[in-house]
Amino acid sequence: MKKPLILVTNDDGISAPGLRTLVRCMSTIGDVIVVAPDSPQSGMGHAITINNTLHLDKVDIHDDNGVMAAYSCSGTPADCVKIGLQEIVEQTPDIVVSGINHGSNASINVIYSGTMSAAIEAGIEGIPAIGFSVCDYTWDAHFDHAQNAITTIVKEALAHGIPKGVVLNVNIPKATDTPIQGIKICRQARANWKEKFDKRTSPMGKQYYWLTGTFELLDKGEDTDEFALAKGYISVVPTQFDLTAHHVIQDINNWNLDA
Amino acid sequence: MKKPLILVTNDDGISAPGLRTLVRCMSTIGDVIVVAPDSPQSGMGHAITINNTLHLDKVDIHDDNGVMAAYSCSGTPADCVKIGLQEIVEQTPDIVVSGINHGSNASINVIYSGTMSAAIEAGIEGIPAIGFSVCDYTWDAHFDHAQNAITTIVKEALAHGIPKGVVLNVNIPKATDTPIQGIKICRQARANWKEKFDKRTSPMGKQYYWLTGTFELLDKGEDTDEFALAKGYISVVPTQFDLTAHHVIQDINNWNLDA
Repeated sequence: MKKPLILVTNDDGISAPGLRTLVRCMSTIGDVIVVAPDSPQSGMGHAITINNTLHLDKVDIHDDNGVMAAYSCSGTPADCVKIGLQEIVEQTPDIVVSGINHGSNASINVIYSGTMSAAIEAGIEGIPAIGFSVCDYTWDAHFDHAQNAITTIVKEALAHGIPKGVVLNVNIPKATDTPIQGIKICRQARANWKEKFDKRTSPMGKQYYWLTGTFELLDKGEDTDEFALAKGYISVVPTQFDLTAHHVIQDINNWNLDA
Repeated sequence: MKKPLILVTNDDGISAPGLRTLVRCMSTIGDVIVVAPDSPQSGMGHAITINNTLHLDKVDIHDDNGVMAAYSCSGTPADCVKIGLQEIVEQTPDIVVSGINHGSNASINVIYSGTMSAAIEAGIEGIPAIGFSVCDYTWDAHFDHAQNAITTIVKEALAHGIPKGVVLNVNIPKATDTPIQGIKICRQARANWKEKFDKRTSPMGKQYYWLTGTFELLDKGEDTDEFALAKGYISVVPTQFDLTAHHVIQDINNWNLDA
């Protein structure tokens, strides 16, 4: 049987340990091509580069299995998928995987996530795609506990296909002494970041801000990604890019909009 | 009756003509506060600034009605809403409006849109919000034909409220000799950008790329935003930030995910 072709990208940049782990997992399943940002792109959402040039460099990734060719791109995660599909792969990949992100992309974080924007970009282009994240923001986060589940999910996605217009958002609890409890298909929890701007003064006397905030879960449901993660499960949220709120069209049709 | 408080932002930057038109429309309805990016932010999607500092400057907007205070922010559209709500307004605005964007944010463009990310950010924070776009990418786009409809839509949104978890994505045809046909509530059309990377060589001999592309409509539906716009109507798509594809959860629950 022909090995599947797997395009791997991320948003923490080509040197991130999470990417290396994902490449190692994917190498057991298929042929791997890496196109990843040349620098960290966290919080980039679905940004694309339209007012600037893009650079693409061939780099070597050194691994236990030797050296593999990869491409580093000056753009965003969504750019990496676009340029990877157009300029690098010779056939359409069977699947695009993004991550492993250092940090949660569960609940509302999906909106700000560069990791998920790469997966969504692939989904828009009609290619099955999954974003993987471990809920540990540190650069030296552990990923070993995630590898089995990631391999299982990708194999099942290749076997069943992912429904059209949908990509998967997979979040994995931070490594602890408790083993992973299992994998749950979930909905996105309602949540919010409560912003706090840290106001400082520069050496030149000018005020500036750092964006900080605390996470607020606003959803007591037991079918959410946040609930699953809190209980030690891996959460899988099928995520769509048709943003239409179909259920309110009837309502708004009754507004008085005779212009 | 107390006048509503309206926060205005955009993604083309504080000096964009589209923003000025929106400010003018909103001034007829309520008290207006402007917090907009200090430079164009098109294609920024839902990016936020977490690895860099943010600057906020008070600037004057000169208009027919005199001078009004506004704030220019070094961040993305989503940053503008966050910092505007936290650091500038003294009470929660009754509505946040974003635009008028120079260019379409209909169909799949909503995903890449800085204009809509500002509206979505407000929606996440529980504030009614609308993004407005005119389908004309030029800096000197005409906006006069859009003003009546924009005022009507904002007034109706203030009167009825916008359902929780939903923001409105309003797109307005480019100004032509044909008058606007009316306003239609629509769903997001399925569409795609067919990328083409324009490959060039720098004076130093290094290759680089420009991202270009052509728009591909993949949806023959007559209830879509693209269909409405093509027929000369203004499209209003209720847009949500719960990205869960609820309809496929049953399917994926049958995968073999015993990790």
